[in-house]
Amino acid sequence: MSQNVLIIGNKRYSSWSLRGWLAAKLSGMEFEEVLVPLYQEGCHEELKKVNPTAPPKVPSLKIGDWAVWDTLAISEFLAEQYPEAHLWPEDTLARAYARSIVAEMHSSFQALREHVPMDLLKKMPYAPLSEDVEADISRICEIWRDCRSKFADKGPYLFGKISIADVFFAPVLVRFYSRSIPLDDICQNYFNTLWALPEFVEWREAAEQEEWTITDYSLK
Amino acid sequence: MSQNVLIIGNKRYSSWSLRGWLAAKLSGMEFEEVLVPLYQEGCHEELKKVNPTAPPKVPSLKIGDWAVWDTLAISEFLAEQYPEAHLWPEDTLARAYARSIVAEMHSSFQALREHVPMDLLKKMPYAPLSEDVEADISRICEIWRDCRSKFADKGPYLFGKISIADVFFAPVLVRFYSRSIPLDDICQNYFNTLWALPEFVEWREAAEQEEWTITDYSLK
Repeated sequence: MSQNVLIIGNKRYSSWSLRGWLAAKLSGMEFEEVLVPLYQEGCHEELKKVNPTAPPKVPSLKIGDWAVWDTLAISEFLAEQYPEAHLWPEDTLARAYARSIVAEMHSSFQALREHVPMDLLKKMPYAPLSEDVEADISRICEIWRDCRSKFADKGPYLFGKISIADVFFAPVLVRFYSRSIPLDDICQNYFNTLWALPEFVEWREAAEQEEWTITDYSLK
Repeated sequence: MSQNVLIIGNKRYSSWSLRGWLAAKLSGMEFEEVLVPLYQEGCHEELKKVNPTAPPKVPSLKIGDWAVWDTLAISEFLAEQYPEAHLWPEDTLARAYARSIVAEMHSSFQALREHVPMDLLKKMPYAPLSEDVEADISRICEIWRDCRSKFADKGPYLFGKISIADVFFAPVLVRFYSRSIPLDDICQNYFNTLWALPEFVEWREAAEQEEWTITDYSLK
C-alpha cells in the first residue's frame, strides 16, 4: 500500500476533488485513490475514518500519519515536493499572477458555484443565466483572455505549459459545458485544449461509470 | 517612490487587508501603503486607478507593472521572495499543515464572517451566537488547540515561531474580541500572544485614528 492516499468524492459531482486529483496526477506523485461517495448517510464518519486528522471534507491527502487538506494546500504541497513537474509557472511574476487567479477561484465565483453545480452527466442548451452568474462567467473569460494574450507564445495553456491555474479551471469547464455557455474564439480554443487533457478525459470517463447518485444535498 | 505598493482598505473593517499588511510587514519587504476607503461611492474606480491590472478588491500588491492580488497569493509571493523571514514553518509536514489551515480559513467560516464582521471599534458582552457561528468558533478553537499541542515546545505561536497561519487568524481575534467570546486557557493564551504582536498593535492604533465610516455596505 502506498504511503500517500488521496481521498476524493464522487467524480461526477465533486469539483474540488477533480482539482486535487488532477494536481496529484500531474505532479507524478504515487498515490492510492480512495473514493467516498458524498451526500450519503454516514459519509462524514467514513471520511473521518480514512483520514482522521483532516476535517471531513474532500479532497484530502494522507501522508503517513499527517494530513493535508483543501485543494489549494494540496496543490502547493505537490508543487513543492515534485518540483520536476513544474506545477507553477517558472517565471516569478507569472507565478505570482497564477497564484492570484487560483486564489481568486478559491474564494470567489459563489454565484456560478451555487447556480451551476458541477454535474458531468448534465448537458442543456444555453439559456441566459442570472446577472451575478453571467458576471462570474465574464470575469473568468476576462482572466482566460488576459492569460492567453500574455503567454500564447509559450504554449496552449493559461501560462503556456500546463499549471495549477489550468487545474483550478477544469471544473469551470464542466459547468460551462453543461449549460452550453457561448464563448469567443480565444476562450473556446482554451476550453478545447483543457477539455482534451488526457487526465481530464480519464476522470470524465470514470464519472460516467459511477453508480452513486445524490441522496441528500445537506450531507456534502 | 518604492517599486512595491500595497493597496489596502479601511483598517477598522478590512479583515483581508489586515492579513495582507501583516504578511508584508513580517516579510521585511519595503513597500508603500495606499489606503482606499471602501464602502464609498467611487471606491472601485479608485482601486482600478491605483492597481489597473488587479480586480478592484483589497488587498492587492503592485510590483512595477504587475499585480498580485488576494491575500493568499500575496502571502505565498512574500514567503517565496523573502525566504529569510521564514513566513511558513520550516518542516515540510508542518508547512503542509499550516497551508491546510490557511486554505481552510481562506474558503470557509462563512457564518462567522457574515454574522460577526470585523470592526475594531466594537466591543460587546458575550451572548450566545447562532448554531452555525458557534460551530465555526469551535472549529477554529480546535485548530488552535491542535497546533498548540503539537508545536508548544517551539514557541508561543501556532507553529512555534510566527507564520502566515497566525496572520490568517488575526482578524478572527478581532471578531472574538468584539463579541467577548469565552475561550479556554490554551486558546486564551494564544489569543493574548497574537493580540500583543507589535505590528498588530500598530494596525489597531491606526484604525482608531481613521475617519472613514461605512456609507454603503454594497460597495465592498
